[in-house]
Amino acid sequence: LAGPAALAYLANFMSLTIWCNGLFSPTATARLEQGLKGHRLLRSAKASASVLEAGQPDPTLAEADIAFGQPDPASCQRFERLRWVEVTTAGYTRYDNEAFRSAFRQREAAFTNASSVFAEPCAQHVLAMMLAVSRQLLPSFRDQLTDQRWEYFQRRYDSQLLVGQTAVILGYGAIGRRLVELLAPFRMKVYAYRRRPLPEEGVASVGREDLAAAVAQADHVINLLPDNPDSRGFVDAEFLAGCKRGARFYNIGRGSTVDQAALVASLRSEHLGAAYLDVTDPEPLPPEHALWRAPNCFITPHTGGGRRDQDEALVAHFLENLRRWQVGKPLVDRVL
Amino acid sequence: LAGPAALAYLANFMSLTIWCNGLFSPTATARLEQGLKGHRLLRSAKASASVLEAGQPDPTLAEADIAFGQPDPASCQRFERLRWVEVTTAGYTRYDNEAFRSAFRQREAAFTNASSVFAEPCAQHVLAMMLAVSRQLLPSFRDQLTDQRWEYFQRRYDSQLLVGQTAVILGYGAIGRRLVELLAPFRMKVYAYRRRPLPEEGVASVGREDLAAAVAQADHVINLLPDNPDSRGFVDAEFLAGCKRGARFYNIGRGSTVDQAALVASLRSEHLGAAYLDVTDPEPLPPEHALWRAPNCFITPHTGGGRRDQDEALVAHFLENLRRWQVGKPLVDRVL
Repeated sequence: LAGPAALAYLANFMSLTIWCNGLFSPTATARLEQGLKGHRLLRSAKASASVLEAGQPDPTLAEADIAFGQPDPASCQRFERLRWVEVTTAGYTRYDNEAFRSAFRQREAAFTNASSVFAEPCAQHVLAMMLAVSRQLLPSFRDQLTDQRWEYFQRRYDSQLLVGQTAVILGYGAIGRRLVELLAPFRMKVYAYRRRPLPEEGVASVGREDLAAAVAQADHVINLLPDNPDSRGFVDAEFLAGCKRGARFYNIGRGSTVDQAALVASLRSEHLGAAYLDVTDPEPLPPEHALWRAPNCFITPHTGGGRRDQDEALVAHFLENLRRWQVGKPLVDRVL
Repeated sequence: LAGPAALAYLANFMSLTIWCNGLFSPTATARLEQGLKGHRLLRSAKASASVLEAGQPDPTLAEADIAFGQPDPASCQRFERLRWVEVTTAGYTRYDNEAFRSAFRQREAAFTNASSVFAEPCAQHVLAMMLAVSRQLLPSFRDQLTDQRWEYFQRRYDSQLLVGQTAVILGYGAIGRRLVELLAPFRMKVYAYRRRPLPEEGVASVGREDLAAAVAQADHVINLLPDNPDSRGFVDAEFLAGCKRGARFYNIGRGSTVDQAALVASLRSEHLGAAYLDVTDPEPLPPEHALWRAPNCFITPHTGGGRRDQDEALVAHFLENLRRWQVGKPLVDRVL
């Protein structure tokens, strides 16, 4: 390294201004402060503990070299000093547009998400849903909460085994790969769908043209699609009609990728056997919404990514990336 | 083979009288009849579709060479013609006594159970329970059934990952081994307890003397103990006091192995974090029983072994054993 490249490299070790609008637990905050010694930690006055909330515009972001949290996308594009943004979510819809990408490309700025922090809990959440439906845990819990009847015959007869069944995963990425690891002992047939199919281990990769054939065979349709213009309304009435009768549908991607009226209709007509949704549109789902009472529809309030140690894991992820950024190593979960 | 041995061997291929008091699905019944062509299928007039019910004494059992179902244990001892009994359950408490064993030993009769039919659903049921508790599925479902509130923060914070946690399995046999296969991708530390510890793959085997130390570390205590004089009340107040605060307890063995009053007390004092029971004492559990309403106590009505294809699987298990018995091969799931 010599000349400007050497200077740029050395600059990474100088005191940086790191802006943050995440509100973390005391332990995670202490860990962040300790990890940023020698740098300036600029806390946004408009911080939030919910990683799902859009960050408020904050003029102090203009002073930052690096942003960590949920910075306002328009401000990220405008403030040219910013060289790297790490968001505290796996989803990054608000940043996923051409204007944002070209602004970051022009100034060679990096953009990372926290997908590896959330892939583990999300994959475990999907398997929890699959097994809960297969083992009839929720109807049994409803009996416990209501009349304590002992539905031995019916529940046993309705119980299924995952072994040998077929699943389609829509939006095959970090969560899907981890899920396939968790499913390995069940010896299922797994189809992995993504817009641009890649050769993948342990699954059959399918693209748009083979998807219908895979879905028609699937006992389990697992939707992990992120929200983007291509994915909105992806699971519509036609898609659901193409599912096998009695198939179970899971959504842990984004609510906007599903036509919810079509989903309710499919459950009411007993075409779909069950749906287990961790995401809805809108969120929170209003108490009067039909999904809450659709037959065999089970809902968790966007808790798929939940992990008690979330804040510690997010801070550790950011600090590891900071270390990599300073020595020029590839960043974990780099999107741009 | 010559003389009496050859005769005994040939006798296995002669027409046998096979008594059965199980009531199976039409498909499974057809499969059984087809598989027993050339033999005499003697259907007990006192048959039952519940594999958990004790069979009624039936004088026609005296004519049988083989019994399949839940034959009355005293009659099995008395009727000397009987050379092999296969029960349609994994549990065999009613047959597990010295008088029964010595009667069968004397006449060189065989006794098999159906543990490999039930190990798979039971192992999946335990994992379903572990993940349901870890992912807070049941509190979320309660919200759905009551006021449809969207408890995003609390449920996420209460969500845990199995990865890296510790489990103790009490009564390590066929179900436990399959469970350990299912848990492998979670990289947990697993202790396997049995009365007579055996070296086992992928787990740390513990006996009576090391059990307390293992239990004290465990995030998950999984009780698979069968009912016998040694196991009755095994999980008592002292055992529960030795669990880590916040530990989760699962029972899919038999209700009699737990002091249920002590369990309720431990849950009420918030020493145990949660209990998920598939078996209770008695069954059905009366609606007024304290377990139904103990905090963080979740109950399924003995559905752990449930699989929609149970009858087909039981018949296939018996026919495979009949084939083995006729050619002198070791029987699957042989107990005596």
